[in-house]
Amino acid sequence: MSTIIAIDTSDVRFPTSTMLDGSDAMNPDPDYSAAYVRIRTDSPDGLSGHGFVFTIGRGNDVQEAAIRALEPYLLGRNVEDLLGSMGETWRWLVYDSQLRWLGPEKGVMHMAIGAVINALWDLKAKRAGLPLWQLLSGMSPEEIVDLVDFRYLTDALTREDALDILRRAEAGRAERQAELLGTGYPAYTTTPGWLGYDDDKLVRLAREAVADGFQQIKLKVGASLDDDVRRLALARETVGPDIGIAVDANQRWEVSEAIGWISQLAAYDLAWVEEPTNPDDVVAHAAISRAISPIRVATGEHMANRVMFKQFLQSQALQVAQIDATRVAGVNENIAILLLAARFGVPVCPHAGGVGLCEMVQHLSYFDFVAVSGSTEGRMIEFVDHLHEHFVTPVDVRAGRYWAPTVAGSGAEMLDASRLEFALSHG
Amino acid sequence: MSTIIAIDTSDVRFPTSTMLDGSDAMNPDPDYSAAYVRIRTDSPDGLSGHGFVFTIGRGNDVQEAAIRALEPYLLGRNVEDLLGSMGETWRWLVYDSQLRWLGPEKGVMHMAIGAVINALWDLKAKRAGLPLWQLLSGMSPEEIVDLVDFRYLTDALTREDALDILRRAEAGRAERQAELLGTGYPAYTTTPGWLGYDDDKLVRLAREAVADGFQQIKLKVGASLDDDVRRLALARETVGPDIGIAVDANQRWEVSEAIGWISQLAAYDLAWVEEPTNPDDVVAHAAISRAISPIRVATGEHMANRVMFKQFLQSQALQVAQIDATRVAGVNENIAILLLAARFGVPVCPHAGGVGLCEMVQHLSYFDFVAVSGSTEGRMIEFVDHLHEHFVTPVDVRAGRYWAPTVAGSGAEMLDASRLEFALSHG
Repeated sequence: MSTIIAIDTSDVRFPTSTMLDGSDAMNPDPDYSAAYVRIRTDSPDGLSGHGFVFTIGRGNDVQEAAIRALEPYLLGRNVEDLLGSMGETWRWLVYDSQLRWLGPEKGVMHMAIGAVINALWDLKAKRAGLPLWQLLSGMSPEEIVDLVDFRYLTDALTREDALDILRRAEAGRAERQAELLGTGYPAYTTTPGWLGYDDDKLVRLAREAVADGFQQIKLKVGASLDDDVRRLALARETVGPDIGIAVDANQRWEVSEAIGWISQLAAYDLAWVEEPTNPDDVVAHAAISRAISPIRVATGEHMANRVMFKQFLQSQALQVAQIDATRVAGVNENIAILLLAARFGVPVCPHAGGVGLCEMVQHLSYFDFVAVSGSTEGRMIEFVDHLHEHFVTPVDVRAGRYWAPTVAGSGAEMLDASRLEFALSHG
Repeated sequence: MSTIIAIDTSDVRFPTSTMLDGSDAMNPDPDYSAAYVRIRTDSPDGLSGHGFVFTIGRGNDVQEAAIRALEPYLLGRNVEDLLGSMGETWRWLVYDSQLRWLGPEKGVMHMAIGAVINALWDLKAKRAGLPLWQLLSGMSPEEIVDLVDFRYLTDALTREDALDILRRAEAGRAERQAELLGTGYPAYTTTPGWLGYDDDKLVRLAREAVADGFQQIKLKVGASLDDDVRRLALARETVGPDIGIAVDANQRWEVSEAIGWISQLAAYDLAWVEEPTNPDDVVAHAAISRAISPIRVATGEHMANRVMFKQFLQSQALQVAQIDATRVAGVNENIAILLLAARFGVPVCPHAGGVGLCEMVQHLSYFDFVAVSGSTEGRMIEFVDHLHEHFVTPVDVRAGRYWAPTVAGSGAEMLDASRLEFALSHG
C-alpha cells in the first residue's frame, strides 16, 4: 500500500525558434515546450510517474497551472487503487463536473488530465517492470475495454464491438511481438520538410532521409503555392519515385482553396495531405476527402477528443488517423481512438516530433500492432530527430524504423538535468 | 492617446452548490464562478473595461491564470489602436501561434481571449457612452464584417454573404430599436426546472413563471425517465397548453438513448430538446434532429467556436442556436455566429444564467434583432433570477421580457463589493 506524496510540475521550454526547426505555415516560430508532471509516492520502490503536455511556448505556464490544479485530486490517494482501475481513474478525472465545464473534454484542462493519466501509466508500467506497450499488449480484451469510456461512442463503437476487435487480434499476439522486436516498426521523417529551410537544406536532408532508410518523408506546405510546387519537384527528384512524400498544410486552407492547391501538387504523387483546414471541421474534411480522392487526408494531432475522431471516421473525413500522445486525455482516450480506427479500417500513423512525442506515442503504435489492428500495413510513426537527448529512454530509430524499447515505463521521463536546465521559474 | 496600465484579474466564486440552484444531469453541484478581468488605462476618463469567463467552480483559478497570461500582450499598448480595429485585435490574439496550440480555438485559452476581447468591447462602449448593443447596431455593414474573421467559414458564409445579410437589415434599424426600447425582448425562464428541486418547488416556481408573464419555461431532464415524465406532466398541468416547455438534458444521452427518451416525453409538447448529447458531436445531433423532428434540437452553450456552429448549421444538427457570452472568443466570434445563424435561417436563443451571462448576452440578441436577423420571431433569451444583484447594471426583466439597458457598457461589470467579497485569494 502506498500513497501519492507529491505532484511536481515544471515549465520546460527549449528555445527552438532560433533554429526554425518546426516552422510551418501556421507556426512560424515555435519554442518546443513541455508542461511537465512527476508523481511521487511513499513506496520504498522509489519509482515515480512522469507525463507532460507538449506545447510550443507561450502559455506553457497556463498548461502547468492546469496540471497543478489536479494536485488536490491526487495528493494522499492510494496508488494501488488508482493504478488498479485506470478506467475508473480516467472517468473520475474527466467527468469531474466542475473541471469539465472548462472544456468540455478539450483544451488546456483536458490535456492536463491527459498528462496526469499518462504519468500514472508511466508509474504502472515501471511497477510492472515493462515498457508501456508490453504492459498494454499483455492485458486481456476485457481488461482493455475496461480502460475505455464508451460514452458518446456507442453510435459507432460499443463495448461489444471493441471486444470483438480485441478478441480477433488475440491470436498472433506473441508472433507480432516477436516480429516487432526483431524487425522494428515503420517510420517516416519530417526532418527535411520544415518551411524555414532553404532548398539546399531540403535536398540535402531529403537525400539523407533516403540514405537512412526512410520510405516516406513529409514536407510542410501552404504558405506559397509557387514555393510548394518548386520544393515538391525538388524533393521528388531527390528521393525518386519509390519513396512516399506526404504534405502537411497545418490548417492553412479554406475548403475550396485546399482542393485547388492540392490539385496543383497532385502530379508529385502525394502519400497524404495533412491538416488541410481547421482541425475541428469534420464537414470540411469530408468535402476535401471526396474532392481529392484517391489522395488521402490525414489529421488528428489537434483533434481534441475521441468524439471528434469518431465523427471524422463516421463521415469519411480522414483516411489516415494521426493520434498524438499528449493532445487527448492520455493513454485511455488514445486506446478508444485506436479501437475506433480499427472499427472503421483506417490506419493510425501517429503525430510525433515536438518534445518527447516520439518517445511516448511509439508505445501506442506497438500496442495497436500487437493487440488491436494486428497490422503495420499502411502504418508508420512520424520521426523528427530532435531533442531526444533529453529523455531517459530516447527513441531508437535506425534503418528507417522505430525499434521498440524494452525498458520499463512510458518513455515520458525527461532527464533531471535537462528538466532543470530548461525550466522557467515563475514568481 | 491612452495606454493600458493594468490587467487586474480575480477568481470570484459564489457558493451556489449549497442551494442546488443550477443542478442538472451532468452538473450536480456547481459553484457559479467568474474568472474576472478588468483592464485599466491612463486615460483621464477613468473608464475601465470589464469581462470574465463563467465557470462552475474548480478550475476557475486555471481560467484566471490563462487570462493573466495575456497581460504581456496588453500592458503598455495604445488603447485607441486596439479599440479602433477590433477585428485586427481579435485576430492578433486568436492567431498567436504559440497560444493557439493550446486549443486550437477552444477551451481555457480561447475563453481567456474571449474575456479580454469582451473587456475591450466594454471599454469601447463606455467610451462611446452607449450600451454595447447600441454601439454595434450603429455600425455600418462594412464595419461589422471587419470585426468578423471569415477564415474557415467561407464554405458556408463569405464576407459578401455577410454584407448581404447586414445590408438587407439596414432598412428598419431605427424602427426596430424603437420597438425594442418600447416593448422589450422575449425571455424564457429556467428558474423552475433545476433537477435538485422537489415537485412542490417545481410547481410553485412554474406557476410563478406564468404569473410573471413568461411564455416559456425550461426543465432539466436526463437523470431518470420516470422522474422526467412525472415532472413534465406536473409542469404541463401547471402552466397549461399555451406556455412553451423546453427540456435540457445537459449532454446526458447516447444517440439511441436520446431518441428513445425524447419519444417518451413528446406527449408534453416540447418547445425544444437542449444538449441531448456531447456538444462536439455534429453527426449525433444531426441523427437526433432527423429522428425527433418536428421537435427541435437546441445547443451551443458549450460549443467551442464558430467552426463548430458552422458545421451544426450545415448539417441541420440544430434548429435553435444557443450562443453564450463567455464560451467563445468574445463579441467578435459571437457576431460571426449570429451571421451564420442568419445565413441558415436558424433562430438564436442565447444561453444565460450563471454569473452575469444574462447581463452580457442580451446585448447580442438586441444587436441581432436590430441589425442582423431583424426579427424576434421564435427568439428569446434565457433568464434565471440569480446573482444579478452583484452587477453594476443588472438585467431588467419584467412581464416575461428583457428590457434593453441604456447605460453605457457591455453589462459585464461586477460591483467592487461583490468581487472583493467573493474573490478567492491565491498564494
